[in-house]
Amino acid sequence: MSKVEIKTPFFVLNPKSYLYGEELLKLAKKADQLAENYPISIFVTAPYADLKTISDETNSVIITAQHIDGIEPGRGMGHVLPESVYHAGAKATFLNHAERPLTFAELTKSIERADELNMVTVVCADSIKEAKAIATLAPDIILCEPTELIGTGQTSDDSYIEKTNEAVKEVSETTLVMQAAGISTADDVYRTISLGADGTGCTSGIVKAEDPVQMLEDMVTAAVNANQ
Amino acid sequence: MSKVEIKTPFFVLNPKSYLYGEELLKLAKKADQLAENYPISIFVTAPYADLKTISDETNSVIITAQHIDGIEPGRGMGHVLPESVYHAGAKATFLNHAERPLTFAELTKSIERADELNMVTVVCADSIKEAKAIATLAPDIILCEPTELIGTGQTSDDSYIEKTNEAVKEVSETTLVMQAAGISTADDVYRTISLGADGTGCTSGIVKAEDPVQMLEDMVTAAVNANQ
Amino acid sequence: MSKVEIKTPFFVLNPKSYLYGEELLKLAKKADQLAENYPISIFVTAPYADLKTISDETNSVIITAQHIDGIEPGRGMGHVLPESVYHAGAKATFLNHAERPLTFAELTKSIERADELNMVTVVCADSIKEAKAIATLAPDIILCEPTELIGTGQTSDDSYIEKTNEAVKEVSETTLVMQAAGISTADDVYRTISLGADGTGCTSGIVKAEDPVQMLEDMVTAAVNANQ
Amino acid sequence: MSKVEIKTPFFVLNPKSYLYGEELLKLAKKADQLAENYPISIFVTAPYADLKTISDETNSVIITAQHIDGIEPGRGMGHVLPESVYHAGAKATFLNHAERPLTFAELTKSIERADELNMVTVVCADSIKEAKAIATLAPDIILCEPTELIGTGQTSDDSYIEKTNEAVKEVSETTLVMQAAGISTADDVYRTISLGADGTGCTSGIVKAEDPVQMLEDMVTAAVNANQ
Repeated sequence: MSKVEIKTPFFVLNPKSYLYGEELLKLAKKADQLAENYPISIFVTAPYADLKTISDETNSVIITAQHIDGIEPGRGMGHVLPESVYHAGAKATFLNHAERPLTFAELTKSIERADELNMVTVVCADSIKEAKAIATLAPDIILCEPTELIGTGQTSDDSYIEKTNEAVKEVSETTLVMQAAGISTADDVYRTISLGADGTGCTSGIVKAEDPVQMLEDMVTAAVNANQ
Repeated sequence: MSKVEIKTPFFVLNPKSYLYGEELLKLAKKADQLAENYPISIFVTAPYADLKTISDETNSVIITAQHIDGIEPGRGMGHVLPESVYHAGAKATFLNHAERPLTFAELTKSIERADELNMVTVVCADSIKEAKAIATLAPDIILCEPTELIGTGQTSDDSYIEKTNEAVKEVSETTLVMQAAGISTADDVYRTISLGADGTGCTSGIVKAEDPVQMLEDMVTAAVNANQ
Repeated sequence: MSKVEIKTPFFVLNPKSYLYGEELLKLAKKADQLAENYPISIFVTAPYADLKTISDETNSVIITAQHIDGIEPGRGMGHVLPESVYHAGAKATFLNHAERPLTFAELTKSIERADELNMVTVVCADSIKEAKAIATLAPDIILCEPTELIGTGQTSDDSYIEKTNEAVKEVSETTLVMQAAGISTADDVYRTISLGADGTGCTSGIVKAEDPVQMLEDMVTAAVNANQ
Repeated sequence: MSKVEIKTPFFVLNPKSYLYGEELLKLAKKADQLAENYPISIFVTAPYADLKTISDETNSVIITAQHIDGIEPGRGMGHVLPESVYHAGAKATFLNHAERPLTFAELTKSIERADELNMVTVVCADSIKEAKAIATLAPDIILCEPTELIGTGQTSDDSYIEKTNEAVKEVSETTLVMQAAGISTADDVYRTISLGADGTGCTSGIVKAEDPVQMLEDMVTAAVNANQ
């Protein structure tokens, strides 16, 4: 067993806790169809208890947990057991999101547990300084998202994207860099990938769109086009 | 819709993060069979990502989350969305376990969210003083478990059980009282129910038993017998 | 030794982390002079490292910590040792402020430690439901401050003040009730005490006033007048 | 203004929350006398509320906070305001101790605030991997202390000390490396400094010694001798 291969550019459909059940499944199935038709890896995050259903009903997307705890099977009442989400179908996980920050010791341990299970790690940083520190842990993907821009509809500017790429790759050459601050339109996606991000993704731009399924398609095809 | 009815005495199979996947399912199915054959409510907890499978494969046990966050659908990346676990089949949830403690504001909000979804609340207290404070929030069940006894194989003594019952019922008459400190044998279960607990439960006494399935059966029948 | 006696109405000068050093000391000295001249207890909070200086330079105010941890002397690196703040002169402490929330177990333990040292406990609640739960722990003062109003300049309405008083006193007769949501003028103070609060207090209304020393005096005298 | 100069080897007297008031002061004064007589920097940590007194009564030791929060003057009720501890006399601070761990974002911000105030940063790591990540933030000192050894009386072995030194200096040449796992005798101090640590320190080996003042002297002189 090894980790799932990531085709760049990649796109992350990250509905956070906005969606669950049928509505989430519908969007995940659309993502699955797009992943079959385009040369792009699509990650789909889901609340823990939705992972199994999404996994059962899709084939081509990379099912992704929103977080895992760095615990071994044992006590850990109320914590997120890596083995449980993995067996439910998650082949990747976010870590250290601004809404679920981790201490150094926790993040180090969580990445180790993900590596043991061959889960792709998407680790969040909210400044270039933090991205550099996290790069020493060699995660698969670093998401650089200045906290102050989350949900504002403002994207990172060109120099920020370039600087983050450099800072990360200098420390960990194989780590991919995701840029997703303020992505709210297909144009934002196109621009971000064109500027050199290995991947991007979206939350509110999709779940709050008039037609989320259409917006998802527009963004994914924009990512594909930006790469040509 | 209303909350699931609880037949007393009740028994909680709480494997925490010790089990997941097949091994957990096997035990849950045994619990399901016991719940069909005996006049007793059996709660089965599971890691979040296992809830859906356990729910699909059982009929009579009360599927129970180990924790929920007091959030509404929205951001909450990495948090436990109540709607998600409910739709995966959980009809009850633990809250404020010593391994996942909550602030006053968080617990108040989590109980409100569980009530909105008609999920049974099992709230943990680690002293009589704390049990009394929590009783003012009128949860469905209070689990009184002196923190220092968790996992030691020492049960709460008679006067502790009696005093907790009194303290809780005085504040919230309808709240059931669960006692589960150091339950490691069927005899412990018999004794605890005989002493007046509305319910009990077990973690390591079952998952670390030579034959967990047999131990589960012994404990459940002991609870039934103690009630006659 | 017993706890310091509280004269009602009381007033809490709570500059949080806005002030330190000389600027804080100046305000504390003014508070001290007011406490000597008026029949009112004045609590002055200070950052931990400022407690000693404030205590050395005042006689009549009640020096108050912003928080203590429920620990005994021992490890606790980085935590707030109750004995340390007590010996530096603090005779009271806030607990469970919305900016430093505590779990049930932590709050229970912190109140116990404060009681052992005869420190007055000012425990925060952000809803009537929470205030009632906290009242079972019989703190000396409960501060009812709906979180959503903190720092907005909106005060709690009449019925909120009355209901909180009733809810708290019903559970713990001797607990004093402080109301401080959105106090930004001397009129707010007058109104709040007139409506039946045992005490009130202020942060930004004072530290951001053009003349903080004058505002402090206006508020304290308003509290005194409201009581006549 | 610049940061206080650190003479190596350095020694950290870190009584955590074991001591406060008179007992702590006595030990701090002894440390002060040793710092005057020997070519060594001695850091003395103290609970926040004790910092001022220790500072007033010593001249040559480096007064050190056990933690600061990465906040600016403002709200932050119950948090540790850097300006407050600095003005009370602290010229250094520990950060990210295993008993007070920080998230990546918090640590990054706390180091920035300490740098602004010219406070020396002593940042804890509990594995070489973590030490390397933290080194990218260029703190003044990194304390490498495998969590599992804290308080066990077992010291880090030779290769651990060497490997940590290399890992840290490779990323941040000017960062000093402190090794303090399981230091319980003067011999441990001698050995640790001889093996190449820039500094060491002690908690329980001193506070639980029959004669803490004598043990402190023995350890400090051992550090000095190891350097010759």
